[in-house]
Amino acid sequence: MQRVCFLLKVRADRLDEYRERHAAVWPEMLDALSATGWHNYSLFLREDGLLVGYLETEDFAAAQAGMAAAEVNSRWQTEMAPFFESLDGANPDEAMKPLTEVFHLA
Amino acid sequence: MQRVCFLLKVRADRLDEYRERHAAVWPEMLDALSATGWHNYSLFLREDGLLVGYLETEDFAAAQAGMAAAEVNSRWQTEMAPFFESLDGANPDEAMKPLTEVFHLA
Repeated sequence: MQRVCFLLKVRADRLDEYRERHAAVWPEMLDALSATGWHNYSLFLREDGLLVGYLETEDFAAAQAGMAAAEVNSRWQTEMAPFFESLDGANPDEAMKPLTEVFHLA
Repeated sequence: MQRVCFLLKVRADRLDEYRERHAAVWPEMLDALSATGWHNYSLFLREDGLLVGYLETEDFAAAQAGMAAAEVNSRWQTEMAPFFESLDGANPDEAMKPLTEVFHLA
């Protein structure tokens, strides 16, 4: 099992709407995440918009590829893209840069 | 179970040593973390020193208080303090500011 942590930056003027959208993620999107191996997946938001993602998966590259091929994900990412800073035209799921795990205690 | 995410900043000139220390955390420190309720605890490091902590615990306030009372933790935190930026005299465990969870998928 891989533990993955990535960072994104939500625009400071869209934080409330970002929270609201993530309190009501489409059930079809949740099903696609589970089906493609995204487990124990959380998003944490700092007040300035820094977003931390954490998930556990058998194979993050495969989990990303699985979601990239899901039609519902294309619709979701297109709607989410305007919430983020500095994506340089990429969708947010393409801009996730995993950090390096330096410590783990089960 | 609470999922907790916090951020700290490691000094850019101490990253290698920080990694080395966390690849060899004292067994007594690991035992104290487990005994005080720090579970599935990971630290992730970005190349610029941004450090993300993630853990699961029944009660984070109790887990923090438990470690604050552990003698081994005082010794560990005193050794770790010089690795961090902007702690304003606090030990790193006192400077952990949890982010807000905005999404979770089991």
